[in-house]
Amino acid sequence: MHVLILGAAGMIGRKLTERLVADTSLVADTSLVADTSLVADTSLGRRAIERMTLIDIVAPPVPAGAPFPVVAEACDFAAPGTAERMIAGRPDVIFHLAAIVSGEAEADFDKGLRINLDGTRHLLDAIRSEMAGHPPRVVLTSSIAVFGAPFPDAIPDSFQHTPLTSYGTQKAICELLLADYSRRGFLDGIGIRLPTICVRPGKPNKAASGFFSGIIREPLNGEDAVLPVDEDVRHWHASPRSAIGFLIHAATIDTGSLANRRNLTMPGLSVTVAEQIASLRRVAGDRVAARIRREPDAVIARIVEGWPRNFDAARAGKLGFNLVERDFDDIIRFHIEDELAGRVS
Amino acid sequence: MHVLILGAAGMIGRKLTERLVADTSLVADTSLVADTSLVADTSLGRRAIERMTLIDIVAPPVPAGAPFPVVAEACDFAAPGTAERMIAGRPDVIFHLAAIVSGEAEADFDKGLRINLDGTRHLLDAIRSEMAGHPPRVVLTSSIAVFGAPFPDAIPDSFQHTPLTSYGTQKAICELLLADYSRRGFLDGIGIRLPTICVRPGKPNKAASGFFSGIIREPLNGEDAVLPVDEDVRHWHASPRSAIGFLIHAATIDTGSLANRRNLTMPGLSVTVAEQIASLRRVAGDRVAARIRREPDAVIARIVEGWPRNFDAARAGKLGFNLVERDFDDIIRFHIEDELAGRVS
Repeated sequence: MHVLILGAAGMIGRKLTERLVADTSLVADTSLVADTSLVADTSLGRRAIERMTLIDIVAPPVPAGAPFPVVAEACDFAAPGTAERMIAGRPDVIFHLAAIVSGEAEADFDKGLRINLDGTRHLLDAIRSEMAGHPPRVVLTSSIAVFGAPFPDAIPDSFQHTPLTSYGTQKAICELLLADYSRRGFLDGIGIRLPTICVRPGKPNKAASGFFSGIIREPLNGEDAVLPVDEDVRHWHASPRSAIGFLIHAATIDTGSLANRRNLTMPGLSVTVAEQIASLRRVAGDRVAARIRREPDAVIARIVEGWPRNFDAARAGKLGFNLVERDFDDIIRFHIEDELAGRVS
Repeated sequence: MHVLILGAAGMIGRKLTERLVADTSLVADTSLVADTSLVADTSLGRRAIERMTLIDIVAPPVPAGAPFPVVAEACDFAAPGTAERMIAGRPDVIFHLAAIVSGEAEADFDKGLRINLDGTRHLLDAIRSEMAGHPPRVVLTSSIAVFGAPFPDAIPDSFQHTPLTSYGTQKAICELLLADYSRRGFLDGIGIRLPTICVRPGKPNKAASGFFSGIIREPLNGEDAVLPVDEDVRHWHASPRSAIGFLIHAATIDTGSLANRRNLTMPGLSVTVAEQIASLRRVAGDRVAARIRREPDAVIARIVEGWPRNFDAARAGKLGFNLVERDFDDIIRFHIEDELAGRVS
């Protein structure tokens, strides 16, 4: 089996690559799936990976010791001809994680259209023309940004798509294309709307959502972190471990169970900043939690106010998408295990 | 004011053109609008039409006696360069009614993408690049096909967009683009999802929905009509008069009242075929109603089964979109007045 990952150099792409290289096949964690018939019969979950192709705008890292060939290439997947060339490798499973983020798509409208919308369209069209009769599984990472305020208390999958950003608009369009190309049999797609991933490893970035991870990550590293919003701000989180689990389950699920509704919101934890901080205190102690500095920022507060806070992800749960973490304490513990070798500064 | 109509040769386009030529400005029927502040302040509703441009794939008819220049042109609006040329005329109001219909978009996937999706995208991009700082009003006719079964009893505007046809997919994407281009100030758009228009004048066509009009139109013409489905089939209807009223109200409404939700389902009448026939009997007598022949067609019955039957269009009502007809009897009376000069055969 040939696995193609677009956007393989990003945080999720790197973790997914490492997991697939270690597992050597698409092994869903069936302990999380109540109804194992959802995964048991997919041949995709029983075939060994024979090769992988990793694509991103910067060269994706190739994990050491892969038992199969891994080709990594730096290229613009949205450039003319690139999609056809990638699809000529006849991938069985495509993880499409490539996108420019919300802030950039808002600042540069043309770039957002070119990468997030047209790039995806070219990919789907290349699959349609080059792989007729052999529809590959296509896992698209979509976003909760397909929804726009005002919201109900918990947003169900049945809620309208009225995004308030160009990024959300472009993702909503990709969802629609993915569903229609799947309905017509050109490919076998599934779109998963990931929660905000927390704790995001690495350096602080300038994303408005950065503080949700920063207030955990920096204190655990012995550094101060800035909290720009009130502690009663509520948001929707999942760990990197859960995100990778969602991707692999999406790659192996029997898509017949989706019944033409190919896009769905992934489970998450709806927690307030105060609850995040309480978890940090429980897991790492008062000394660590004291490294959070309150510096209210009206601009960030206003942006965050328009974001969704809570979802009803029951549909994904029934389809076997489940969180690895039980609560936010777990999210912090996973970060300490996976990124800090178990040690807190 | 310059009014551009794309798709001007179709039934709705012709009726809209005739109305605008007769009114010489965009006169909304304020007797239908409870809150007239919704329309009172729009300059678009108070300016005389100075010229009109009519576009369609076949030459649109030019009504006699127009008190302003009317240019009619047969061209493919989706062909390269056409959108730029149309927008160079700097229209103040654009009615975008051009599309290939559901059956054709399903049969010819590439043509549907080219006309319904890419054609609209080129139009919006041409507006963005050619009319910066002077965003025109763009009225898009969308469709209830943006929704896909299974449905709630009455589908609200807040229901998810999971179309089950390529036509519905393309319309849902156009809605998303229209909303985002409007949010960014490139244009001032509104998308209206029209009910099935009944009674549709003219010859019978091969659309699966054709019988909804045929069972009224043909008997009133002294001809037999075929009913291919059970009488308990329920569907969502509005008269051509209401459709034209919706378009003109959409062109003159204060779009600030839409609050970033630029697309909405228009009001209609949810009636069964049995109720349609009862209306025909009341309005035109038993002799006319007896011209309906029951010839069950399993293929059509199955197609129609997947269609929506009823909507909650309260939002459109609050925004001043209201039916002209009170009931289906009115729909039949309007058809007799408008198309049959008041006479029933």
